Amino acid sequence: MKINGQHYRTIWLAQDGWRVVVIDQTRLPFRFETVALGSAEQAADAIRSMVVRGAPLIGATAAYGVALAMRADASDAALEAALALLGATRPTAVNLRWALARMRGALASLPATARVGAAYAEAAAICDEDVALCRAIGEHGLPLIAEIAARKPVGEPVNILTHCNAGWLATVDWGTALAPIYLAHDAGIPIHVWVDETRPRNQGAALTAYELGSHGVPNTVIVDNAGGHLMQHGQVDLVIVGTDRTTAAGDVANKIGTYLKALAAHDNGVPFYVALPSPTIDWSISDGLADIPIEERAAREVTHLSGLADDGEVRSVRVVAPGSGAANPAFDVTPARLVTKLITERGVCAASVEGLAQLFPDLASRGTVV
Amino acid sequence: MKINGQHYRTIWLAQDGWRVVVIDQTRLPFRFETVALGSAEQAADAIRSMVVRGAPLIGATAAYGVALAMRADASDAALEAALALLGATRPTAVNLRWALARMRGALASLPATARVGAAYAEAAAICDEDVALCRAIGEHGLPLIAEIAARKPVGEPVNILTHCNAGWLATVDWGTALAPIYLAHDAGIPIHVWVDETRPRNQGAALTAYELGSHGVPNTVIVDNAGGHLMQHGQVDLVIVGTDRTTAAGDVANKIGTYLKALAAHDNGVPFYVALPSPTIDWSISDGLADIPIEERAAREVTHLSGLADDGEVRSVRVVAPGSGAANPAFDVTPARLVTKLITERGVCAASVEGLAQLFPDLASRGTVV
Repeated sequence: MKINGQHYRTIWLAQDGWRVVVIDQTRLPFRFETVALGSAEQAADAIRSMVVRGAPLIGATAAYGVALAMRADASDAALEAALALLGATRPTAVNLRWALARMRGALASLPATARVGAAYAEAAAICDEDVALCRAIGEHGLPLIAEIAARKPVGEPVNILTHCNAGWLATVDWGTALAPIYLAHDAGIPIHVWVDETRPRNQGAALTAYELGSHGVPNTVIVDNAGGHLMQHGQVDLVIVGTDRTTAAGDVANKIGTYLKALAAHDNGVPFYVALPSPTIDWSISDGLADIPIEERAAREVTHLSGLADDGEVRSVRVVAPGSGAANPAFDVTPARLVTKLITERGVCAASVEGLAQLFPDLASRGTVV
Repeated sequence: MKINGQHYRTIWLAQDGWRVVVIDQTRLPFRFETVALGSAEQAADAIRSMVVRGAPLIGATAAYGVALAMRADASDAALEAALALLGATRPTAVNLRWALARMRGALASLPATARVGAAYAEAAAICDEDVALCRAIGEHGLPLIAEIAARKPVGEPVNILTHCNAGWLATVDWGTALAPIYLAHDAGIPIHVWVDETRPRNQGAALTAYELGSHGVPNTVIVDNAGGHLMQHGQVDLVIVGTDRTTAAGDVANKIGTYLKALAAHDNGVPFYVALPSPTIDWSISDGLADIPIEERAAREVTHLSGLADDGEVRSVRVVAPGSGAANPAFDVTPARLVTKLITERGVCAASVEGLAQLFPDLASRGTVV
């Protein structure tokens, strides 16, 4: 998508042809800075510190991390070490494991001398495929928005609520939850997005608002507490969120707070859609609450916030009373019963074993559940 | 309650015997500062800018605001002007209207010469009665906590989630939602409180954590997004919140986001209690969603946050992407169907016309509903 009129992906090769450049998402929206990653360790650090985030982009970065590792040492031991290092960075997102498994599959049987080239090619393929998947999600989601627009008076915007950032910054391009929104906007459908700020890391206020604004999509930031009230008063036509891991039965692990919005949508008859590329599906599990590990992140993300101070510096301030600690679970699980439909690259389906198996018979059969 | 071992109320007369001193709650938890109010205008400003907040304390401050107005000019016109000025400060809390109606009742029929003394006496009575009401709420709520403690292994804490600040800082002393918690803690029941930070103004992270910590009650701050996840995993035994206005049918207007926690409590079988003194009940209405006006506050409360910077200064930082606007509804309405029980100064009752009318037959009959 575009920033200041220039097209960007979130990850690309540097001019030197081997380093991997990413946008430092911890600096957005107040600074646009890129970072060149030169080793698997740097790629792992970028994932862990959330310089890159979003399940699809984490997978893409990890894939390139393997390529960087192979460039330093293409031995079997180095390959396994890189897979282990990168696999341990974030516990919840399943694309990470998927991307690493795919890299292992592409590289393990090759002689060491062939691994560097093959690794870069496979990482590039993962990125290109992600762009195609996201674009397809957008095309399948677009009619859901168009239907609502068609029922409204001409010119009245469709009000869409989203949580966290599942836009192009979370993927390689287009986004998952935001892909249908971009396509609808580009098709001339009037759209207005309610952006949950998404504490503690404020990916909504910082990233979603930034990328929607950069693309010209009208949006309003709200605190995470406000969405239920807006739904009670008919100000939300639909909700679309992304997911970090989806079970074979349609339970959805996404950014903490998603479950609360799903409850409010259900209570108010507002459609609640989850947009996902199939690599986000964990075919081996069906009970999200029992089987998806939820990452607990540092308390400082809750006790401190950073933003742009009046002096133009990005500063961190403590917001919690001195002496009080904080807990910081990063994701929650929305049970399939609260999900209206899943929007995938192959189409829209029910959030259920049957719904997913019908769209993905080839993948579902590999899991242990279906 | 105590700060650094010294007992405080939230509002008291200055040593000069006429000015009204309050704790500047916009400076907590990083600065403990008091402000002396010398006019009705200053009292109105303190309410509007949330130097004082919390429905009962707003009522008490408005009552003293009338006394300050009478000291300057005790005419009928000045009385009506003060009532209008103070009544327009905050639209949602009903205690404000209740306190002002009570002041009018106490003063209107008196000769101007008698009004100053009577106004100070009535404001002091409102404060003393609020302390007694809150203490009684605590005593009626205590058994609800004790019951849960009795079912747990000895020493295992009762986990209570609260939203916003309905502690002693929101009242004159004791608090509403926190009164049962203080009494339980003082009675030796092990308590742990999950404190919702409560964006946008962070009254939970700043005030509730501060006052619980000052009193020695173990607490952990969480983002507003986290409570549903904790309930899904059995980490919340009960929820207690306050309210700014309660209908005769038990609908509850409270800080924005309360509704989302009520939905999560309902979905997970967690008891959801609302603690309130009877002046918070608006006997004239029964449909909270239709009839309670919801204050829309400034966008800057969402776009900017203040906290303690590394240099020791309290600084404000912008957290929303430049160019994006924000909406800021300050309250939401939790329908009575999601409220397990109301905890009042006269006892615990169902959140319904019948439940409230049974406890308050004298007050309910004055409303238009029952």
